[in-house]
Amino acid sequence: MKNNNRFQKPTLGIAGFGAFGQLAARHLGQHFEITAHDPSPSVAASAKRLGVTLTSLRSVARADVILIAAPVSSFETVVGEIAVACRPGALIVDVGSVKTIPSDIMRRRLPSHVDIVATHPLFGPQSAARGIEGLKIAVCPIRGSRHARLAAFLRKALGLTVLISTPEDHDKDAAIVQGLTHLIAKVLLRMGPLPTRMTTKSFDLLSEAVSMVQHDAPEVFEAIEKANPYAETVRRRFFDLAADLSAELETALRTPICDDSGR
Amino acid sequence: MKNNNRFQKPTLGIAGFGAFGQLAARHLGQHFEITAHDPSPSVAASAKRLGVTLTSLRSVARADVILIAAPVSSFETVVGEIAVACRPGALIVDVGSVKTIPSDIMRRRLPSHVDIVATHPLFGPQSAARGIEGLKIAVCPIRGSRHARLAAFLRKALGLTVLISTPEDHDKDAAIVQGLTHLIAKVLLRMGPLPTRMTTKSFDLLSEAVSMVQHDAPEVFEAIEKANPYAETVRRRFFDLAADLSAELETALRTPICDDSGR
Repeated sequence: MKNNNRFQKPTLGIAGFGAFGQLAARHLGQHFEITAHDPSPSVAASAKRLGVTLTSLRSVARADVILIAAPVSSFETVVGEIAVACRPGALIVDVGSVKTIPSDIMRRRLPSHVDIVATHPLFGPQSAARGIEGLKIAVCPIRGSRHARLAAFLRKALGLTVLISTPEDHDKDAAIVQGLTHLIAKVLLRMGPLPTRMTTKSFDLLSEAVSMVQHDAPEVFEAIEKANPYAETVRRRFFDLAADLSAELETALRTPICDDSGR
Repeated sequence: MKNNNRFQKPTLGIAGFGAFGQLAARHLGQHFEITAHDPSPSVAASAKRLGVTLTSLRSVARADVILIAAPVSSFETVVGEIAVACRPGALIVDVGSVKTIPSDIMRRRLPSHVDIVATHPLFGPQSAARGIEGLKIAVCPIRGSRHARLAAFLRKALGLTVLISTPEDHDKDAAIVQGLTHLIAKVLLRMGPLPTRMTTKSFDLLSEAVSMVQHDAPEVFEAIEKANPYAETVRRRFFDLAADLSAELETALRTPICDDSGR
């Protein structure tokens, strides 16, 4: 966003170059000079293909805009390292599936001279396969006022639908939206191979939903279920309601099918 | 299918003029002279709009082709009445969501001088709202050889995708396809209003699947869960797997999110 030289692109440092960091690089390459850091050496080929320079986290942290795309498990460590290296006036943006705890960490650990915006692109590599235009992204202003400029960039340059929210409101909805999708997908995958021929339209939709999340990294499920403070309540409610329905059906369906019910 | 007079359409008698009987009349009106019977007087307006003559079940049962679209609860009574009135050479077709038990009833109760085909259109008024072309229908030959001619009619005249099956194979798949869709929809509806703004593509698919079945008649859910001999096993397996996952999550998620896991 910040550009000290009108002939030079601003620099973007991506901390965590997994599936999402790479997706971001693919769509931001024409707007930024990108460097990235990842603890795994296996990302080298992807970085080369995307024209991204791999470097140390310390070096990535000196960019104009820093995108944190690290898993929840290493998030606080990464933020801590960025905190000691980032430059005054930098914009720091995260992209995780949960927002309350990461936002608290960023607010607490990052120096007051940087701006912070927490975001959650409501899509992954799977749903972005045919382009990201029209897809949704949640944007939560945390510190500073550059969230408005970021939102305009996301809308105009990337064509995203921006949903301004707070970390808490985001997590309440995400606990249902992502929590339930992943729970249902996990149960259905355990049922074994699902029919693909003798299917209804509604079942096809269900199968498509399952196939969209079944290849998500385990970290995504962990983040959703473990790091979202509202996930446990939603999960318990879902399992309780399933158990209630199960019990009701066992009782109700014991009565015979008959012709004289008058229904 | 049978036409005694080249200048006259064959007659079609619809036994049960609910949502599905009416949908059938809408799509078959140009191919047949249609009469229908329904115990409820509330269908009169729909019949008039569709140009269908309402009459007694006995009279409906004298048509060239008889379509049984009665609920599971009155199915055997309706078949019994058709059995005493139907004419030799008639083709009798049912359209319920389950096939094993209704096929047995038709085979047992209907006279040997009629042909029988059990079908299950894998769609309802909701999914047929934008036309039925390309939608699926399961066709199970029960008695006689006219299933081939019926399948050709369904393909060519109505544009349906015909899936030839047996009642047992149909019910095994339907127990998963329809059973799980309805179970998941019921649990999700009990969760209360679902988010519509901050959503992912996979959750939108899930919501769409729920909305497609939520207005289905209670008889549909009853037929699927009660009259499909494979439904109970599928249902128990789903609820057992949900309970297993619930227990696993309660244990696994008790371990803290940490930075030194080495993942």
